[in-house]
Amino acid sequence: MERTEKILAGNVRVVSTLIRNLEDRVPKAKAAIRNIYPHTGKAHVIGFTGSPGAGKSTLIDTMIAVYRKQGKTVGALLVDPTSPFTGGAVLGDRVRMQRHAGDPDVFVRSLASRGALGGLSKAVGNAIHILDAMGKDIIIVETIGAGQQGVDIINHAHTVIVVQIPGMGDEIQTLKAGILEIADIFMINKADRDGGGKLYQELMHMLNMVENYTGGWRPPIIRAENINDRDAFTKSVEELTDAVDAHYQNLVSKNILEECLLRHVMIELDETLEAAILEPIITELTKSGELDRFVDKILHRELDPNTVAEEIAERYLKGYDREQISQ
Amino acid sequence: MERTEKILAGNVRVVSTLIRNLEDRVPKAKAAIRNIYPHTGKAHVIGFTGSPGAGKSTLIDTMIAVYRKQGKTVGALLVDPTSPFTGGAVLGDRVRMQRHAGDPDVFVRSLASRGALGGLSKAVGNAIHILDAMGKDIIIVETIGAGQQGVDIINHAHTVIVVQIPGMGDEIQTLKAGILEIADIFMINKADRDGGGKLYQELMHMLNMVENYTGGWRPPIIRAENINDRDAFTKSVEELTDAVDAHYQNLVSKNILEECLLRHVMIELDETLEAAILEPIITELTKSGELDRFVDKILHRELDPNTVAEEIAERYLKGYDREQISQ
Repeated sequence: MERTEKILAGNVRVVSTLIRNLEDRVPKAKAAIRNIYPHTGKAHVIGFTGSPGAGKSTLIDTMIAVYRKQGKTVGALLVDPTSPFTGGAVLGDRVRMQRHAGDPDVFVRSLASRGALGGLSKAVGNAIHILDAMGKDIIIVETIGAGQQGVDIINHAHTVIVVQIPGMGDEIQTLKAGILEIADIFMINKADRDGGGKLYQELMHMLNMVENYTGGWRPPIIRAENINDRDAFTKSVEELTDAVDAHYQNLVSKNILEECLLRHVMIELDETLEAAILEPIITELTKSGELDRFVDKILHRELDPNTVAEEIAERYLKGYDREQISQ
Repeated sequence: MERTEKILAGNVRVVSTLIRNLEDRVPKAKAAIRNIYPHTGKAHVIGFTGSPGAGKSTLIDTMIAVYRKQGKTVGALLVDPTSPFTGGAVLGDRVRMQRHAGDPDVFVRSLASRGALGGLSKAVGNAIHILDAMGKDIIIVETIGAGQQGVDIINHAHTVIVVQIPGMGDEIQTLKAGILEIADIFMINKADRDGGGKLYQELMHMLNMVENYTGGWRPPIIRAENINDRDAFTKSVEELTDAVDAHYQNLVSKNILEECLLRHVMIELDETLEAAILEPIITELTKSGELDRFVDKILHRELDPNTVAEEIAERYLKGYDREQISQ
């Protein structure tokens, strides 16, 4: 229990070790999550997604400063896409959010999304629980919006910000990939660039076509212009932060926060069931060499995958009725 | 067995019904796959991936014609991305490949990727088995390369073609999303457009940085220019088709085809185990109302997801040892 208390007290060293253990899938890390779980569920989780180069880091860095000025404590998780093949972090080590390094009420951590091919790291959900148990009022999660990660963020965040910049030519693409539906707020960064007006018009046009907004919330479009004019940029981020707060208030007042939390729990339970039920079976079959033998028979068409799966299910599941299931 | 024979004989009506049943997850469709499975494993499966608007449909349409001229039979599966929220096909009904409609040796089918959030439809793997059992020499699978789908295609295809067009500004993005690693062949479509040279140079540069190519295969970059100059375009597609055949020959001669097939089987078995073991458990808990009660307790922090998952595992798994597992 000592460790739990250290986490609740915000001990950065203990928290960092635990997050690293989660990334490395060290089994005992699971017990730690169990102990802190009763202390979670208080933070407002904000997801940032958008293409690489959209300026998410600078936005987040400034947003942290805005929240700190309001006296709120902040945690941030920066999810780095990892190549599914090489295992190396594509973006490499990032040195960011430096100006908050000395602030004990800000905790920033990079997470490699290894192990989850294209999807959001499983460790992200648990890392959010940890920052939540640390007592952070606001938890910001940054992901790359190029694929599944960008969409997966809705499994963890209460408010999702989709960051876009003009001239990437990917407007329509991004929207097709399902990003439109997950956005609670659109942020056009570097809006003074060529194509900024067109991007704004396109987003407006898309939003105008939506007939019913969930909870009556029409995603606002916030624009930030010159990133080098610090005051003006901060002003835009304040506007963004106000929109984030308004979105959360809307979730609460329209009784849709519950629905959002329910979705998060369902997805987490699904993942946990996979880890508790499927993974041990596959591990055992791998160790005994049986998985290899099954695979070999499938490769040579002596067995088919369904028959193998049912044989395994029959062996491991209590009261398994193959006839009934395979109807 | 009658149905199996009709499939083996290439009965289009029976095949279409079966694919629809697979999309709709009709349980009896599983038995059909089991029966045809021994007759699969002969086709060469070619995956096409790339952004919407990259001209994949036209490439595939022309490639079908090229293969038909060689006397090969062809099946094509066009995977439509489905919005994870609305359930509607984003691209709508597509009328394509019309000129092959009367050819009994060509079978083209659209598949909605519903149910698999962002990922490739589970039905795709089974649809490939069906086309394979029908005796198609070549099976072409088209996916959208915007996210997870684009990467997932390597779970099904022997040869993956990544289609790019100039001026999309997404060169680096696409490569970051892991597309580079899955490409066996790069196809630059509309290569005469602005930026065509730059895109070619960028791809060359990326390929030059790779130290070891799997099986000694360096992905060639094929270029197609004016899509309206039918003869020139067909010539480019013939070049593409030659590259596809050369890639397959390389897989065979370097003994890496086995490795590729092994990966496909492993992934299919994993999915099948999920369907045979996890899904029935979740269905039962949902029907009994227990899942709702668990979720409610997690929502109110009376229980945590891991404890619930272990309780469920203990109930359903034979000889489950919670102490050992939860270490």
